[in-house]
Amino acid sequence: MKLFKSLAVGTGLMLLPTFALAQDVEYAPLADTQFIFNTLLFLIGGFLVFWMAAGFAMLEAGLVRSKNVTTQLTKNIALFAIAGLMFWLMGYNIMYPGEGNWIIDGVFGSISSKDIKTEIDAGGYSNASDFFFQLMFCGATASIVSGTLAERIKLWPFLGFVVLLTGVIYPVEASWQWGGGWLSAMGFSDFAGSTLVHAAGGFAALAGVLILGPRIGKYKDGRVVPMPGSNLALATLGTFILWLGWFGFNGASQLAMGTIEDADAVAQIFVNTNMAASAGAVVAMILTQLLYKKVDLTMVLNGALAGLVSITAGPLDPTIFGAVWIGAVGGVIVVFAVPFLDKLKIDDVVGAIPVHLMAGFWGTMAVPFYTSGTSFVTQFIGFAAIGVFVFVVSFLGFGALKAIFGIRVSEEDEIKGLDLSELGMEAYPEFSRG
Amino acid sequence: MKLFKSLAVGTGLMLLPTFALAQDVEYAPLADTQFIFNTLLFLIGGFLVFWMAAGFAMLEAGLVRSKNVTTQLTKNIALFAIAGLMFWLMGYNIMYPGEGNWIIDGVFGSISSKDIKTEIDAGGYSNASDFFFQLMFCGATASIVSGTLAERIKLWPFLGFVVLLTGVIYPVEASWQWGGGWLSAMGFSDFAGSTLVHAAGGFAALAGVLILGPRIGKYKDGRVVPMPGSNLALATLGTFILWLGWFGFNGASQLAMGTIEDADAVAQIFVNTNMAASAGAVVAMILTQLLYKKVDLTMVLNGALAGLVSITAGPLDPTIFGAVWIGAVGGVIVVFAVPFLDKLKIDDVVGAIPVHLMAGFWGTMAVPFYTSGTSFVTQFIGFAAIGVFVFVVSFLGFGALKAIFGIRVSEEDEIKGLDLSELGMEAYPEFSRG
Amino acid sequence: MKLFKSLAVGTGLMLLPTFALAQDVEYAPLADTQFIFNTLLFLIGGFLVFWMAAGFAMLEAGLVRSKNVTTQLTKNIALFAIAGLMFWLMGYNIMYPGEGNWIIDGVFGSISSKDIKTEIDAGGYSNASDFFFQLMFCGATASIVSGTLAERIKLWPFLGFVVLLTGVIYPVEASWQWGGGWLSAMGFSDFAGSTLVHAAGGFAALAGVLILGPRIGKYKDGRVVPMPGSNLALATLGTFILWLGWFGFNGASQLAMGTIEDADAVAQIFVNTNMAASAGAVVAMILTQLLYKKVDLTMVLNGALAGLVSITAGPLDPTIFGAVWIGAVGGVIVVFAVPFLDKLKIDDVVGAIPVHLMAGFWGTMAVPFYTSGTSFVTQFIGFAAIGVFVFVVSFLGFGALKAIFGIRVSEEDEIKGLDLSELGMEAYPEFSRG
Repeated sequence: MKLFKSLAVGTGLMLLPTFALAQDVEYAPLADTQFIFNTLLFLIGGFLVFWMAAGFAMLEAGLVRSKNVTTQLTKNIALFAIAGLMFWLMGYNIMYPGEGNWIIDGVFGSISSKDIKTEIDAGGYSNASDFFFQLMFCGATASIVSGTLAERIKLWPFLGFVVLLTGVIYPVEASWQWGGGWLSAMGFSDFAGSTLVHAAGGFAALAGVLILGPRIGKYKDGRVVPMPGSNLALATLGTFILWLGWFGFNGASQLAMGTIEDADAVAQIFVNTNMAASAGAVVAMILTQLLYKKVDLTMVLNGALAGLVSITAGPLDPTIFGAVWIGAVGGVIVVFAVPFLDKLKIDDVVGAIPVHLMAGFWGTMAVPFYTSGTSFVTQFIGFAAIGVFVFVVSFLGFGALKAIFGIRVSEEDEIKGLDLSELGMEAYPEFSRG
Repeated sequence: MKLFKSLAVGTGLMLLPTFALAQDVEYAPLADTQFIFNTLLFLIGGFLVFWMAAGFAMLEAGLVRSKNVTTQLTKNIALFAIAGLMFWLMGYNIMYPGEGNWIIDGVFGSISSKDIKTEIDAGGYSNASDFFFQLMFCGATASIVSGTLAERIKLWPFLGFVVLLTGVIYPVEASWQWGGGWLSAMGFSDFAGSTLVHAAGGFAALAGVLILGPRIGKYKDGRVVPMPGSNLALATLGTFILWLGWFGFNGASQLAMGTIEDADAVAQIFVNTNMAASAGAVVAMILTQLLYKKVDLTMVLNGALAGLVSITAGPLDPTIFGAVWIGAVGGVIVVFAVPFLDKLKIDDVVGAIPVHLMAGFWGTMAVPFYTSGTSFVTQFIGFAAIGVFVFVVSFLGFGALKAIFGIRVSEEDEIKGLDLSELGMEAYPEFSRG
Repeated sequence: MKLFKSLAVGTGLMLLPTFALAQDVEYAPLADTQFIFNTLLFLIGGFLVFWMAAGFAMLEAGLVRSKNVTTQLTKNIALFAIAGLMFWLMGYNIMYPGEGNWIIDGVFGSISSKDIKTEIDAGGYSNASDFFFQLMFCGATASIVSGTLAERIKLWPFLGFVVLLTGVIYPVEASWQWGGGWLSAMGFSDFAGSTLVHAAGGFAALAGVLILGPRIGKYKDGRVVPMPGSNLALATLGTFILWLGWFGFNGASQLAMGTIEDADAVAQIFVNTNMAASAGAVVAMILTQLLYKKVDLTMVLNGALAGLVSITAGPLDPTIFGAVWIGAVGGVIVVFAVPFLDKLKIDDVVGAIPVHLMAGFWGTMAVPFYTSGTSFVTQFIGFAAIGVFVFVVSFLGFGALKAIFGIRVSEEDEIKGLDLSELGMEAYPEFSRG
């Protein structure tokens, strides 16, 4: 036992309040220390996942043509802001029905009754930190949708769908698993959301794109017309941002860091997350070289993202080798799924359906390889249930928006670009178009 | 009970050290644990606020015309570097006069005598971490000024003003409150700096713009000529960066994370900060749609920022609903203040005065709605005192710089652009101008 | 001693599990708390250093001409992905030969035998967190090389060299010091890698550029032809990213945060790192003004980076004043070294050799000014040994790649730009070239 503590920092002498006879030393209560560590994990994870909103914005702004960049930026910052408000107004309560509705009374209850900060933090972490972290996942789900539908969907109907998605669709399906609902009771396993976040976003995007149709001129005379992104530096930046944010996305989904086991788990998740992304990128690079004789940067970026999505359902249990091959398969999926969607004339501007829906499916199905107590059948049921629910409700939602307001800009406006026609503001007014 | 420590992580068996015969386990002293948590909060908060320097740089580079981008970038990185040096040489000692001048002897004392690392860390955190965190606030104050004065102020006189601002003006007014000065004695409340940082930066910008005058051609024949920013993707990126950094700005201003209460407070601040930004963005979006029939992305960005500034004076005490409406009012302010300034022919290139000064005023005045022990009168006195002080000294400073060196480039150089005339280096030499 | 703990958070009452009669309170074991703090430091430091990969990508994409931007982006994301895989397959085991080969058996052993997560975390931190952190340094070393060789090296041969560098060269030389090898036994001191990472990357770049030769048209009729970067906003963003990441690079190299001394050390490193960067930037700004009558933004950026590299060998021991002058000398070095290299017709596209090799040398040699127990002779021997080793092996590696595959694109392809000739994909297809 330490009786005296005398610390000399730098060249000075330092006497700290803790030096004392043993019975006078105050020790840190375990519960308090764990509470702080857990809360800190949520906060760090939360701000990293927040940062993914910027990543999606940059990725999508880089992959659309310059005449639609302002619109894409507007959609991305607006959807994140709306997600925050909707998740507070309704989403959190829907997602965690068993937690006593501690934000507001009743599912659609009044904001005036109770508030996040007046309740007991009983879970060993700050409720506010949990709310902060969960909110970011809701925002990420919406971010996935915006890329697929880019360059032709109107701003306000899109934002209307975001209200539905972040206020109802995501919270309902997420409650099935993370809210202690029937999927979790059944043994479905989705650690950080390959299905709940990524495939869900992908299914919403798929519903939207089927109603919306492809961009004008994308599929002409049986050919797929390339419409190259206007700024690959931004797209690459966006990918790096997402990769960074994913450490928080997966790592903080451990939900605790107050014990050696939990801290070690978070660290293993960081490693596996990184390795899956690396493998996805390298495999996509090699495959595009083999298939097309040229490396395709956008495929490398999407390969890294697909690797990340793939490992997200189970980032803790695989060995590093497991993370590598799971991520690598994600990279393979992207390279083949992107042209496959084009064959079906599904015009997904940024490749969000291959990356988030398809690699999300793969990641979900790969869980039983490493996580005991899971089964392929249960994983499939969970994926299918969420897929059907999200797709159907999204399809109805987009359909209703289309019937009531119309969701697509006019042909003339689409050709002119949404920035001038919808917003009257160009993103790069001084850089002439080639 | 465990006598030996044998850890198997992963698939192995794990026996934890926490149970043991009492006399064999060494426990963590509370003071040490708290010291580390507090220091960590300062460091994380500090690097997030550092990141805001990049946010301001990108926001401003995106909102100026391409012929002035290199200059704007240069100003932003230079002002941050200068802020670091000046805050060390003078600022920190001026700001915290009661702390025994532990960096240097005397207000303008020699750097050779004492140093940050030779002194006692008596506050329950590392002094160096506090210095790191506080330095970033000083840098942020200077960043606010550069946007308003863009596209016509000369580089070196601007940097001369930065020396004055970061070495004297900011430290003096900040000492009134955070240094334990008369405002704090009076009961003024400004948690993270709606007035001390944001309005102060805004007042310095106002003084500068009044002396500098509007850009050539901005106000012509009674009309306001739009001069659209050259790169809205950068401006949006900058806003996301600032939003991210703000979690550190407000959250770490709790100054402690070593207790459950403090950790919970930091988490609540994160939530409120996010909600105020979301509300500001959404309100600005809706308002511009209603007023102009088109959403204005730059207003949405500034709406988010105004929401952030608004909640900064009191991010802890409001309920979530409180944060939402306080942030929303910030968004309203921006939408009306930007054209109002143009009516006064005050040419604020990026809208820093509406965002930082006006929303800063609002945020400061909103504190008594939720924070007990504060009063509107005291809040007003604090705001006014700092406003008058910063404005007057800045006005004199800019005036002196103008009289001695001249602060504005020639008409010819302004039209040509500062990048070619002042620096001889274009930011985008290959992207022709439209 | 605290007998009861009753926490009221917000307006609610909170009863925590820790309230109890004294003998019932469970305290946090010191070893556990320290393990978590140390692991957290590695993870935060690791994700910050990860972020530097994005910084290098943006810096280099901004400093090359637009016809080579896609290629530069591809190289940067690919090299980081490859570094992750190679460091896992071979590098980590080579670098830490004394640690029982806990990832894989034998230096080139099979991935199937053991894995990072099945072993004991005996060092007071999670092994996975250490692997995560160390991997990022390996990636950073490779990032340094890509900038120098830009605009003419073929993609695949470059990536071939990355395999050699991250799988063998870096791990071998890093093992000499950080793996407990002969340099560390000799008393060489390189806290965070001025030599091991930065100069090593610089030496590899130097070997590459000597074999590769200058870009076509760079040196014509005895003149140096400027080839300005295409996007200085990206280059500035990249510098800010690197500056931010460097807090993790240097700070987490303390390798521990579980005691007051360690936390204080990390904080001091953050401060010194920031001040060295500030000083480097300011000095480069002033010098370019004096020498060329115009501030050169790219020099300011490289000045900041040189300041950062300079302090990296010893960021803990210097006073702030020490950090300032060490960083300032870094800024001076850059301003003189860039034209000096051009005089030698060494065409380093982004200035990586001045920044990383030369300032790395300076930083390494500056250690004895503040760190006791070090000597200039030992520092020189360490620098020279690593320099010779890295240079020779890199030279042989590039030479072999050249002999077998060829490493340089054809003259025609270089003039056309690597984006169209190698990848068939432009970074900015709509922004016409000026």
